[in-house]
Amino acid sequence: MITLSSDFGSPYPAAMKGVLASRTDARLIDVSHEFPRQDIRAAAFWLREVLPYFPPAVHLVVVDPGVGTERAALAVRAGGHVLVGPDNGVLFPAARTLADDADEHGEIEVFEYAYDDPESVTFHGRDVFAPAAATVQETGRETVEAEERFTPVEEYEDVTFPDPTIREGGVDGEVLVVDDFGNAITNVPGEILADHFGEAVTVNGVWAPAQRTYAGVDTDNRLVTVGSHGNVELAVNQDRGDERFSVSTGSRVRLRWT
Amino acid sequence: MITLSSDFGSPYPAAMKGVLASRTDARLIDVSHEFPRQDIRAAAFWLREVLPYFPPAVHLVVVDPGVGTERAALAVRAGGHVLVGPDNGVLFPAARTLADDADEHGEIEVFEYAYDDPESVTFHGRDVFAPAAATVQETGRETVEAEERFTPVEEYEDVTFPDPTIREGGVDGEVLVVDDFGNAITNVPGEILADHFGEAVTVNGVWAPAQRTYAGVDTDNRLVTVGSHGNVELAVNQDRGDERFSVSTGSRVRLRWT
Amino acid sequence: MITLSSDFGSPYPAAMKGVLASRTDARLIDVSHEFPRQDIRAAAFWLREVLPYFPPAVHLVVVDPGVGTERAALAVRAGGHVLVGPDNGVLFPAARTLADDADEHGEIEVFEYAYDDPESVTFHGRDVFAPAAATVQETGRETVEAEERFTPVEEYEDVTFPDPTIREGGVDGEVLVVDDFGNAITNVPGEILADHFGEAVTVNGVWAPAQRTYAGVDTDNRLVTVGSHGNVELAVNQDRGDERFSVSTGSRVRLRWT
Repeated sequence: MITLSSDFGSPYPAAMKGVLASRTDARLIDVSHEFPRQDIRAAAFWLREVLPYFPPAVHLVVVDPGVGTERAALAVRAGGHVLVGPDNGVLFPAARTLADDADEHGEIEVFEYAYDDPESVTFHGRDVFAPAAATVQETGRETVEAEERFTPVEEYEDVTFPDPTIREGGVDGEVLVVDDFGNAITNVPGEILADHFGEAVTVNGVWAPAQRTYAGVDTDNRLVTVGSHGNVELAVNQDRGDERFSVSTGSRVRLRWT
Repeated sequence: MITLSSDFGSPYPAAMKGVLASRTDARLIDVSHEFPRQDIRAAAFWLREVLPYFPPAVHLVVVDPGVGTERAALAVRAGGHVLVGPDNGVLFPAARTLADDADEHGEIEVFEYAYDDPESVTFHGRDVFAPAAATVQETGRETVEAEERFTPVEEYEDVTFPDPTIREGGVDGEVLVVDDFGNAITNVPGEILADHFGEAVTVNGVWAPAQRTYAGVDTDNRLVTVGSHGNVELAVNQDRGDERFSVSTGSRVRLRWT
Repeated sequence: MITLSSDFGSPYPAAMKGVLASRTDARLIDVSHEFPRQDIRAAAFWLREVLPYFPPAVHLVVVDPGVGTERAALAVRAGGHVLVGPDNGVLFPAARTLADDADEHGEIEVFEYAYDDPESVTFHGRDVFAPAAATVQETGRETVEAEERFTPVEEYEDVTFPDPTIREGGVDGEVLVVDDFGNAITNVPGEILADHFGEAVTVNGVWAPAQRTYAGVDTDNRLVTVGSHGNVELAVNQDRGDERFSVSTGSRVRLRWT
């Protein structure tokens, strides 16, 4: 199985599928091609949330603002999965979770993929990363290093998410991503909110009840809840939380118990 | 084969695909993840239009404004298909059509799925309904009841579409959904229009010719026609009918022969 | 393998997938259902760019402003592939490239598909073209003519792209399509720009550097480059080129060396 993730929209992902289907019969499953454009951190967040639900697979990831520069192409093995994508950190939050889920040692192995001059300098998804993913699929995830194009490397870019700051009477964090429903997902762990369900809180001074479910408030009302990713999110029942809390990706969030 | 339908956009459906692919090798086919948000009736309409073209399959449907509440998870068997989704009525218009197509008795069997406490109260698509669909696939559509998690039930929510009112010189109906082309699809059966093709009609007082095809009028002109679903629709050749007839989902439509 | 391409958005493509899955176990791969609405030339361009990356397959293509009229349904065999779609020219730019890639003779064979009265006059994708594609898949791409519904034809619609005009000190072309990133893709072959990388050029009087990669300019800056399709494109690093060069599909582009 090969999953595909990118910020390409349509129809560029189809060229990657063609390249993969030309070389392997592996099942192809789209994760998303609608990641926020060129947003490495948002893609890293979503991959970390979604990929752990898949069985061991090859995951092709192309969110690549540096396309055409000298940045390396990587294959990252973690928990039986192999993630293939650019050396800009996008693969590592997911890789750490996959490694931790599989194994208490949480081992991650990183390989650089040696690629020939690509047909295009602007579409490495098609000309570099899809061939790399097909090569992993053909070689086998457990034996990537049997293929001489893959060389172990020790240094690579990484992405980490900021930790929130616990304060007396609340917590200061930030919005990591906004989902398609308009839920603003923060870096605040959900456990922090658990003691406050049923109470009112303020977010940057805006009042909202802390609730376990969207349906805990009437339609069109604000709430603070814990999303499916386990983080605190700012939401509106059946409407957009980002707009009603006036936040977007990167916004500082000051959460206070009342 | 398992089809997937939701109002999730991207990338949440990928988590459901991961759960399914972890448990079964069944083919996964997306019906849509772009159903109008939280709109049970629109989803019910589209499923009724689309699912009958599929061979017998498991259909996972998650349009679920009540996520996190006590509403049940259902498996509905009809015409050899099994539809899996929340107990809010979304499954039944399609189930009735599948049952009618397969069998003059049109039998529908409804089972409640007993689920464990889900990992998240806000993403039952991933934590409840995808596992339920995988369980149906593993157990077999014809023998769902062999799995003790499925219990026959007699009471459940339903969704029906309103009937139009035939009047002298016309018909009063309403817009059920608007498609991506901007065609406003009404609850008026197409047969009612068949006698009037080539004539002019009015819709809420707005003049338009009744035509068998979009190409029956010049580009950018209004027409009233019968869509692929068999209902009367308000359209514009190569443009949006909803805007040019000033209607949206739920709008009353007064159609008069002239 | 059957690929699917249309301008349908969602959920109409699912009905086509149902029809195909009812008749064949072939792998179904979406190319795009987001082609610009009713834009035969844009679809023809994208198919020519994407389909050559696929292994030999059946390609179902439905961009069909003439749906419901008498226009024929075609199956076009080229380079081992068969493209199925309406007789409006949309299939031929891709067919020529597939034929050229496979064979120096570049042979293209065109068949008309005799179809029964469709269930709907507005959704031939479901009622005519998907059944035609399934029939090609069942009959075999190499032996389409063994099925009596397919008759060789000599006359059909075609789509060609205009050639640019080379002038002293520059070239005059036009924008063929704009991609989802906002890159405005012209009909000017990339080789013409190759001698000018690193220099400044003007586009309709607007200054921009000619660069080999997006990263050749700072974020948010204009550039003129060669896209993955091999044509000159007007771009902005991490933003939309169409807006910043004030062009859209069909715009005249006057490119001058400086």
